Amino acid sequence: MTLPPPIRIGKDLLGLMYIDYMMNLPIYPLFRRLGLCLIFVNLFAPSSTAQHKSGYTLVIHGGAGTILRKQMSPSLEQAYLRSLNQALDLGEKMLADGKPALDVVEAVVRLLEDDSLFNAGKGAVLTNAGEHELDAAIMNGQDLKAGSVAGVMHIKNPITAARRVMENTEHVMLSGSGADEFARQQGLDMVENSYFTTTSRKNGLERAKQAEAEQEQKKKQEPTASFKPIKSDWKYGTVGAVALDQFGHLAAATSTGGMTNKRYGRIGDAPLIGAGTYADALVAVSCTGWGEYFIRMVMAKSLADRIRFGNQTLAQAGHDLIQVELPRLGGDGGLIAVDRTGEFILPFCTEGMYRGYVKKKDAGSSSTRQVAIYKD
Amino acid sequence: MTLPPPIRIGKDLLGLMYIDYMMNLPIYPLFRRLGLCLIFVNLFAPSSTAQHKSGYTLVIHGGAGTILRKQMSPSLEQAYLRSLNQALDLGEKMLADGKPALDVVEAVVRLLEDDSLFNAGKGAVLTNAGEHELDAAIMNGQDLKAGSVAGVMHIKNPITAARRVMENTEHVMLSGSGADEFARQQGLDMVENSYFTTTSRKNGLERAKQAEAEQEQKKKQEPTASFKPIKSDWKYGTVGAVALDQFGHLAAATSTGGMTNKRYGRIGDAPLIGAGTYADALVAVSCTGWGEYFIRMVMAKSLADRIRFGNQTLAQAGHDLIQVELPRLGGDGGLIAVDRTGEFILPFCTEGMYRGYVKKKDAGSSSTRQVAIYKD
Repeated sequence: MTLPPPIRIGKDLLGLMYIDYMMNLPIYPLFRRLGLCLIFVNLFAPSSTAQHKSGYTLVIHGGAGTILRKQMSPSLEQAYLRSLNQALDLGEKMLADGKPALDVVEAVVRLLEDDSLFNAGKGAVLTNAGEHELDAAIMNGQDLKAGSVAGVMHIKNPITAARRVMENTEHVMLSGSGADEFARQQGLDMVENSYFTTTSRKNGLERAKQAEAEQEQKKKQEPTASFKPIKSDWKYGTVGAVALDQFGHLAAATSTGGMTNKRYGRIGDAPLIGAGTYADALVAVSCTGWGEYFIRMVMAKSLADRIRFGNQTLAQAGHDLIQVELPRLGGDGGLIAVDRTGEFILPFCTEGMYRGYVKKKDAGSSSTRQVAIYKD
Repeated sequence: MTLPPPIRIGKDLLGLMYIDYMMNLPIYPLFRRLGLCLIFVNLFAPSSTAQHKSGYTLVIHGGAGTILRKQMSPSLEQAYLRSLNQALDLGEKMLADGKPALDVVEAVVRLLEDDSLFNAGKGAVLTNAGEHELDAAIMNGQDLKAGSVAGVMHIKNPITAARRVMENTEHVMLSGSGADEFARQQGLDMVENSYFTTTSRKNGLERAKQAEAEQEQKKKQEPTASFKPIKSDWKYGTVGAVALDQFGHLAAATSTGGMTNKRYGRIGDAPLIGAGTYADALVAVSCTGWGEYFIRMVMAKSLADRIRFGNQTLAQAGHDLIQVELPRLGGDGGLIAVDRTGEFILPFCTEGMYRGYVKKKDAGSSSTRQVAIYKD
């Protein structure tokens, strides 16, 4: 396991001191003095490193929505839980190996993009035109650097394109065919749009179009009645990851196929920095839900600011935003967030949210992990 | 002047009471009772209405950047000031007539879009491909409703398309040719892309490409040297308006042609709710500057949250964000903001910002107005 430099040096020196002490060599007093110095160095090291003691936290989501136990087959349920666990496996290994949070959230989201169960990358929902338009964003809390792509159609892993935007351009957000062209120039894996299609999503589009046609019909029959926008399961589904690494750095990543049956180049909250994705030195956030409400509430930044300026705890801020303000405005969904102490939340106000976390408090403790789908 | 309903009814009733009193008719006691009720109604009316006493504030900007007096001809300077004054004329007339803030910011931004001096609508900058891709957003503070379009190429007034997205769809953000198609279906004025082109912007693109080519050349000569992104005047220029109407409601609107020489479907901060444009019940904000930094800072929402949660004054929050944090991150630009008491700010950390305001404190006072370009 790769440790941050001061801890690693400390460990090495302690080892040498032990050998020295056991062999009763004359250099022991020198080593003891050095060891004491190192204890002081560690005591006054930046709180992030000192505080985490090689702990880390990874939280993931695979979308929130009307996920009911009675509608889910046991085998599908197991498949979702297996996928979530695989994502946590990958992320935890990287975090334990001392990889930075930014690498971890990208890798985890890539895995979920490649997994056809989730509405991102392969398995993304279909637009009204029967195509896929994908959105993704990534943000590094350490330096507030961010990258995002919206409405891309040929990039196998949009989250990696978002990272390239962040690192290899002076831009934050690229869109449409221009973003596809950029990814091609960067040498990223490009695919036919049909690569993303699955039977399940084709059926989803058909159901959405049918529901829309029925509502249009009703509207014609009762032109004065007010109709709520069709709000249904197929609106949701996004994947996201937030992580705190061993060095106390935070990062967030989100990727989505957006809304089934979307048209007019609709962009949701996922690729918008501050709305669906945000990370700073204090907190990293990834959202999922009815994107339009998350944009209007600038959800992820709202959470961060309530903590930074409102003296709210992470739990309190998450509760207020997701359980109180979001439903009050008429929206729903959920989010995942982790702060720099490793505390995390996964609030949602839908029937379910595909979600999971793995957390290791410090070097001495073993990690805890959970994956879940439903509210209870 | 249209007054809000309770005040208008009160005025009418007072008029009737006066006539009745003068004519000594027997119905006077009844009217007196009604009048007293109305006084009570007004005393307990929502504070927003009571507080403003028919005051209003409108603040506008036409972009921030390296605007130096020595580089500006007196006639061009006069043209800019005239344009800013015309925008304030239009907005003030509407506010005085009791129009809602949302209508006012849309109308003012439309006027600035039609004005070829500013980088929005006609007169927008050119992309690397020699075309125009326009972005705009509008937000209503009263109900947090918002609409935005990004990368549109044929809508004469993108800000009106943004408002249609807000009012006639369940979406917040539409992009690219899909957004153009939506605007066409809505019956908005559509134009050839070349409608937006001016000689000045053609020259701007040529200069930008030349500077880029020179930097590429230098990079080849000194491959190890680090080069800052080309940061120059042509990055900037956006128009925006924020208003507080007589009813205490706030709204914000921003429109831009983005960055000269942009490519890959780059989207800046202007159409991103929370970044370049934001309004809630407390404050309305419109930004201009190096968009990427405004996105990473989620600038407009940051300002709102510092006021809501950080107990900062508008002036303090604006100063901290624009004069301290933005330059610290490496960006520059400015913003305009108005709060629900009618206080406003126009901070910027560039050489200049085309800007202006008009404010009427209450029904009894006359309005104050100023337009300016440079720092001093």
